Amino acid sequence: MSEVEKKLAAMGLELPALPKPAGNYVPFKRVGEMLYLSGQGPRKADGTSHTGKVGAEIDVEEAYGHARIVGLQLLAVAKSAVGDLDRIEFVKLLGMVNAVPDFGDQPKVINGCSDLFVELMGDRGRHARSAVGMGSLPNNITVEIEAIVRVHD
Amino acid sequence: MSEVEKKLAAMGLELPALPKPAGNYVPFKRVGEMLYLSGQGPRKADGTSHTGKVGAEIDVEEAYGHARIVGLQLLAVAKSAVGDLDRIEFVKLLGMVNAVPDFGDQPKVINGCSDLFVELMGDRGRHARSAVGMGSLPNNITVEIEAIVRVHD
Amino acid sequence: MSEVEKKLAAMGLELPALPKPAGNYVPFKRVGEMLYLSGQGPRKADGTSHTGKVGAEIDVEEAYGHARIVGLQLLAVAKSAVGDLDRIEFVKLLGMVNAVPDFGDQPKVINGCSDLFVELMGDRGRHARSAVGMGSLPNNITVEIEAIVRVHD
Repeated sequence: MSEVEKKLAAMGLELPALPKPAGNYVPFKRVGEMLYLSGQGPRKADGTSHTGKVGAEIDVEEAYGHARIVGLQLLAVAKSAVGDLDRIEFVKLLGMVNAVPDFGDQPKVINGCSDLFVELMGDRGRHARSAVGMGSLPNNITVEIEAIVRVHD
Repeated sequence: MSEVEKKLAAMGLELPALPKPAGNYVPFKRVGEMLYLSGQGPRKADGTSHTGKVGAEIDVEEAYGHARIVGLQLLAVAKSAVGDLDRIEFVKLLGMVNAVPDFGDQPKVINGCSDLFVELMGDRGRHARSAVGMGSLPNNITVEIEAIVRVHD
Repeated sequence: MSEVEKKLAAMGLELPALPKPAGNYVPFKRVGEMLYLSGQGPRKADGTSHTGKVGAEIDVEEAYGHARIVGLQLLAVAKSAVGDLDRIEFVKLLGMVNAVPDFGDQPKVINGCSDLFVELMGDRGRHARSAVGMGSLPNNITVEIEAIVRVHD
């Protein structure tokens, strides 16, 4: 078991089931040492997703939790792509928040994902990032995050 | 003629003229085997573009058609960059829909581009993707798609 | 001193102080010759940022100036990462404008950054790009731009 997964277990967390893409695309694509992960939204245990406009019916704390869930899902996809989570490093995130026009706390929301990666992986979890507000997201999900990952041999 | 272009011809499709960038940028930039394609909107034969808010005056089916047009334009740029479309592979798309705030079918819209790539290129057309809703797009175009492409020798 | 910095000085411009990330992320991440720069908003000398909705309280000319400021900030981060600005080349920008839903001049706004890069660096400043409208941005900043840069030896 990878150190990352041992740490997850110690935190009482586990990797969720792999997402089923919502369109004609694949969850990841690898080119050499670079791994591109498709954008994901926060799923619930029952297969539905967390929905709503952040800054209106969803507050920052809830949305932070959703970004953390997406982080776990991105890790699950990375594991399916690479096998061993100790071999990956996060390079770049695009964190997208389904927010009302006057919302300004996108960074606090996307920290839900970033904090998880840094907690689990230390320096390999630290990444470049943009955290921004979208006009709308698929099925009204609260957040969507895509990632670029580096794979170490 | 490349296999991709033979298939396009058999489908009754042809590559459009190259786009004229709407600002101080270039249609593509290549670094080694990676090719970055600038975002494009759906042009009409007369040089104007398809415009309107998806979910209000534009429905999913129309917007799907616009995403397919953008797919053809991205192929035209990739050909101008590489010469031979049989040497390219799509890695990652960012599909941006100019939608109203309660719109939720961004994946169905961007499938217009993704379906075209998979139809034409099989596995080399399959890509990682995010399909999301923007607050606004240049000149009120309905969709804009940017792409990362891999070039094979 | 690099040619780029000599040119900056001749234009009466200087590199600003490095930004303090607004969340749990780093200003850049490098993988081989590729350098990923986190999204940045336009800071003022007093440490606050230019804010407001473009197309409502902020017009295109003001927002163009803000994009130019962000360009200087991106150069400052690239210098901190690489040391010598004559060794970098801009590959791809994602220019994000905090605009009202009917705004359509995102390319004119983001030209504030693109024009600066081309003026300073010629062909190495020319890049692929998308310039789009967001539903909202952190702390209501007017523009945010992220970049992919290539580092030459």
